[in-house]
Amino acid sequence: MTTPTTLVEFQTALAAATGPDDAARAGAAERNGQLTKPPGALGLLEDLAIWYAGWRGDARPRITAPQVLVFAGNHGVAARGVSAFPPEVTVQMVANFAHGGAAINQLSDLAGATMSVHPIDLETPTADFTQGPAMSEAGVMAAIAVGWEAVDTDADLLVVGEMGIGNTTSAAAVANALYGGAPEDWTGRGTGVDEAGIALKSRIVAEGLAVNPEAATDPLQALRCLGGRELAAMAGAIAHARILHIPVILDGFICTAAAAVLECAVSGALDHAIAGHGSAEQAHARMLHHLGKTPLLQLGLRLGEGSGGALAIQILRGAIACHSGMATFAEAGVAGG
Amino acid sequence: MTTPTTLVEFQTALAAATGPDDAARAGAAERNGQLTKPPGALGLLEDLAIWYAGWRGDARPRITAPQVLVFAGNHGVAARGVSAFPPEVTVQMVANFAHGGAAINQLSDLAGATMSVHPIDLETPTADFTQGPAMSEAGVMAAIAVGWEAVDTDADLLVVGEMGIGNTTSAAAVANALYGGAPEDWTGRGTGVDEAGIALKSRIVAEGLAVNPEAATDPLQALRCLGGRELAAMAGAIAHARILHIPVILDGFICTAAAAVLECAVSGALDHAIAGHGSAEQAHARMLHHLGKTPLLQLGLRLGEGSGGALAIQILRGAIACHSGMATFAEAGVAGG
Repeated sequence: MTTPTTLVEFQTALAAATGPDDAARAGAAERNGQLTKPPGALGLLEDLAIWYAGWRGDARPRITAPQVLVFAGNHGVAARGVSAFPPEVTVQMVANFAHGGAAINQLSDLAGATMSVHPIDLETPTADFTQGPAMSEAGVMAAIAVGWEAVDTDADLLVVGEMGIGNTTSAAAVANALYGGAPEDWTGRGTGVDEAGIALKSRIVAEGLAVNPEAATDPLQALRCLGGRELAAMAGAIAHARILHIPVILDGFICTAAAAVLECAVSGALDHAIAGHGSAEQAHARMLHHLGKTPLLQLGLRLGEGSGGALAIQILRGAIACHSGMATFAEAGVAGG
Repeated sequence: MTTPTTLVEFQTALAAATGPDDAARAGAAERNGQLTKPPGALGLLEDLAIWYAGWRGDARPRITAPQVLVFAGNHGVAARGVSAFPPEVTVQMVANFAHGGAAINQLSDLAGATMSVHPIDLETPTADFTQGPAMSEAGVMAAIAVGWEAVDTDADLLVVGEMGIGNTTSAAAVANALYGGAPEDWTGRGTGVDEAGIALKSRIVAEGLAVNPEAATDPLQALRCLGGRELAAMAGAIAHARILHIPVILDGFICTAAAAVLECAVSGALDHAIAGHGSAEQAHARMLHHLGKTPLLQLGLRLGEGSGGALAIQILRGAIACHSGMATFAEAGVAGG
């Protein structure tokens, strides 16, 4: 499928995406009932395996080609002092990703995943969204295209992550536009700001929503007006994965905000996605509640980069290893329960 | 160190075990503060890495030789109908472990761990503990020795698991002896019994405690009188690992009951151990609370075999991969926070 070039094309493509393979799902559920364990004894691992089998169209799937994509962008609002780190850290961390020194490099290697980093116009931050839209339609589509085209069509699992000084404020604004409530419901410590910093972030979110009224009524406008290029790229990658039937493990707060845009635009757009890690940002739990997703892990990570999603690959790998590798009662000669 | 031959020798050896290496721990904490991430952004992974470094005596450790040990035993109380499965399933599942067909085989392979299964006198169940002690001192020491001697002295991480029809009842009795409360506080569904089954298990636990009064005052007597051979072997392995400074990831309810015997016998005996998975057995959460441990995972597993512990190896591997593999701010040329 060619990369969409307008937000309308993007939404139309997402709405046309097909669902999982019911026969593969049923076959996986049947196999699950025959494995050498008491019924349900592998808990959520059983649900994960059946879900994954449905999306891959294979009742006994394997995970052989996981992909981790990290997108980086700079934000106009960073100049307002919303982060504990200066904006030049974005480009420095991109170099660190490229040289293999960041957390996501280690976690991708551990998961046997290919990992690539995609900096998007770092030298030109998005516009300060308290003064108008962060991006033009052409601008947001260019960023969506980076994500869309970065997806390996042969991948069988996708994690998307991000780096962008100031992007928890952008994600909070997007979430507030999508789900309403008060700005304070959606702001948090980010990489380490104090109470005054959180109050500043909340004021900036409120200003952003007031200046960009279209964000409150159209999820894709929320992405354009309040998001950033790395959020748009993540949304593009997750949407393309949905169309390609590549299951996705969501990372933390910022990744989930980008993903939530899709679900709010097209109900069911995240049926191919699970929550990898529940971030320490309280707004993340709120957003996951709206999405009806429970994170696999809760380990207090608040790093981004795709780190929580990449770590959760191991849990899904465990589920698939058991599902596809275990003997059945008949094969093992074990008396069933 | 030679294998202890009496319970007194066993307790003495455990009490003489040394603690972690403070210098390695401090070195790991210092390194953690220099890695390219905001302070604390890897959450519990940071604590895990520092803990592991201390026990391994290496500020920048690697995990290269994890070991999974599965012990199997049969229980006299199984004849009372406390399990949804017949006792012959124990030996059938041992064959399944040996042929690579069980969940723990898949999860051990995934974790890069060597795995071995150790059936202990399956043809002779322990005595029914409602009629007297489950094991003699010689009997419990023989089982402890199986676990003690199964530990690879070159391992750098240990998970112990079990298989034994009826052993949730045995573990509940041990836990009740160690921590008091009502039998109902410590009994649960096991592999799948109903409410009447839980009531039966509670009655049997109460009978066991009444018949074996020494279990309530001496933790090692609780193991001998109310435990089983696989519980004793797990206790032996965990104790030997403590002496060898091999960190341990605890599995579910039954493993934790065996481990709790050690902590109740010698305070600090489980300082080298973390909780891998919080089981769906409610009594497990109660026991972990007593031990002051929070499980890394909560995925609804209730299988045993070491499955939750083996899955949690991946989380510890993630922690160590980040800690020992990431670049420092200075190495990466990134501005610190």
